[in-house]
Amino acid sequence: MINSIPSATAINEAYQRIRPFINHTPVITSGTINMMFGSNIFFKCENFQKVGAFKARGATNAVQSLERETLARGVATHSSGNHAQALSWAAGIAGARAYIVMPSNSSPVKIAAVRGYGGLITFCEPTLEARETTLQKVIEETGAVEIHPYNDVRIIAGQATSALELIKEIPGLDIIIAPVGGGGLLSGTALSVHYFNKGAIVVAAEPEQADDAYRSFITGEFVPSVNPQTIADGLRTSLGSITFPIIGEHVSSIVTVSEDSIVKAMKFIWERMKIIVETSSAVPFAAIMENKIDIKGKRVGLIFSGGNVDLNDLPW
Amino acid sequence: MINSIPSATAINEAYQRIRPFINHTPVITSGTINMMFGSNIFFKCENFQKVGAFKARGATNAVQSLERETLARGVATHSSGNHAQALSWAAGIAGARAYIVMPSNSSPVKIAAVRGYGGLITFCEPTLEARETTLQKVIEETGAVEIHPYNDVRIIAGQATSALELIKEIPGLDIIIAPVGGGGLLSGTALSVHYFNKGAIVVAAEPEQADDAYRSFITGEFVPSVNPQTIADGLRTSLGSITFPIIGEHVSSIVTVSEDSIVKAMKFIWERMKIIVETSSAVPFAAIMENKIDIKGKRVGLIFSGGNVDLNDLPW
Repeated sequence: MINSIPSATAINEAYQRIRPFINHTPVITSGTINMMFGSNIFFKCENFQKVGAFKARGATNAVQSLERETLARGVATHSSGNHAQALSWAAGIAGARAYIVMPSNSSPVKIAAVRGYGGLITFCEPTLEARETTLQKVIEETGAVEIHPYNDVRIIAGQATSALELIKEIPGLDIIIAPVGGGGLLSGTALSVHYFNKGAIVVAAEPEQADDAYRSFITGEFVPSVNPQTIADGLRTSLGSITFPIIGEHVSSIVTVSEDSIVKAMKFIWERMKIIVETSSAVPFAAIMENKIDIKGKRVGLIFSGGNVDLNDLPW
Repeated sequence: MINSIPSATAINEAYQRIRPFINHTPVITSGTINMMFGSNIFFKCENFQKVGAFKARGATNAVQSLERETLARGVATHSSGNHAQALSWAAGIAGARAYIVMPSNSSPVKIAAVRGYGGLITFCEPTLEARETTLQKVIEETGAVEIHPYNDVRIIAGQATSALELIKEIPGLDIIIAPVGGGGLLSGTALSVHYFNKGAIVVAAEPEQADDAYRSFITGEFVPSVNPQTIADGLRTSLGSITFPIIGEHVSSIVTVSEDSIVKAMKFIWERMKIIVETSSAVPFAAIMENKIDIKGKRVGLIFSGGNVDLNDLPW
């Protein structure tokens, strides 16, 4: 199963599997924004998803795919972000344990959120090496199964269901835009468009300060993300061995945006649309505001990936 | 027409009149919040209304009710809040002029918003007397017709359409909760519930620091709002000669909430529901969080009045 590409059937099965648990998120539009950009933009609001991010889809699909005996040993991951919360939540509704390895310098807000969803936290030094070795130790001790945040076909098939819902609800989209970090959402989106909305193109948006996916895409060679300094904290990770080839084959282009325009886009969305999106969510709209994507006269689907922000630490 | 009470027919007619222009705002729910309070709460989201507040309903009904010759002379009001924006917008879509008298110390954000909707601003000293005399002067010079922000049956009938939509969409509500300032939204809500959802009760929520409606309601005598110090800037006004009697007859109770709990409720809504509501909007939910309203086991409609906030000046 590892290293394969989710099929149309796998995505449809994932959707049926997670439907009882996740939110069918709304698609919203803004007459003002459509007028400003001369196009029809349909915003798919994963900020209204369970745990506040699309990550609930993949985590639920992964957890619900496990055999009962495997599930009884629990699931594990290292993450300080939305995947940690999503896996804790998805394990909880399946009656299973989630072992979460988090760096000791994680924000109290994120620690509280994981605990709130019932995740069992093991803290470690804030290095990738410490995270991985600590996770291995937890797995050895507990027998829990690792659920990677994006480089996993079950996760990708789960994340693909957001675009699947969007495509079913809004026929005839010309372009679908998603942010890219590790590529779980983007590769799933690209597959759903490939299978279910033929003719549409998929464009990814990435921070200039974390442009490893852009450079990997352009050169065709994997470029890792090394200590990226972007405010879009969900997009700092490197592509994976499963996500990269899917993106290489099914994504039309990757565009990059400045830090300044991410903050401007985020504030614009809050002010005009009255919804809360996180920094990573604002990246695709930043690309539109920067005129990096030709959307004139087009029907555009744009995925707002999540809405988890620390309201005491806003970027403006 | 002045001093009468809008009939069920007037509210239905208002709804038909404004439908082509306003948003049918969504009703949203939160499983987490329902679990926390042991009830089913349906949030009617006027923060997603045109101009970001329910005020678009009343202003549109008032403007669209005018004879063509009257409309040609324009409409006028004094306001530094959402009514100024709503009237400017409603006049704009009717091809009419809106003369807005604003105090000279209005925030640049609000001035820009009124200008953005095409309102023609006359500044005055920041006193009620200066606002009224300046408005009279503007009306004498232009022949424009004054549209009061709430003490006007056309405005009340327009604001009533929010509860009308809610009642049609969510049958069998037990309680409907709205904030109260001048009473336009509350009196309209109370009338819609009286006509279209018999058996349900209407409860109003008001800041303790601006409890003139509460005191008017309890004593049965009009108590003016004198220099109230509340963060809920939309709720600082006094009841009107038309709104007060309607509220006295059709509202079950008015509860008051502390400033602290308004801020807590607002932040809670932002964090959990991922939507932006303004301070005044958070007042009814603050009453729920303070256990001021018995909602256990009930079906509750709660009106989020608006979402216009200055993101550079948040109250936490």
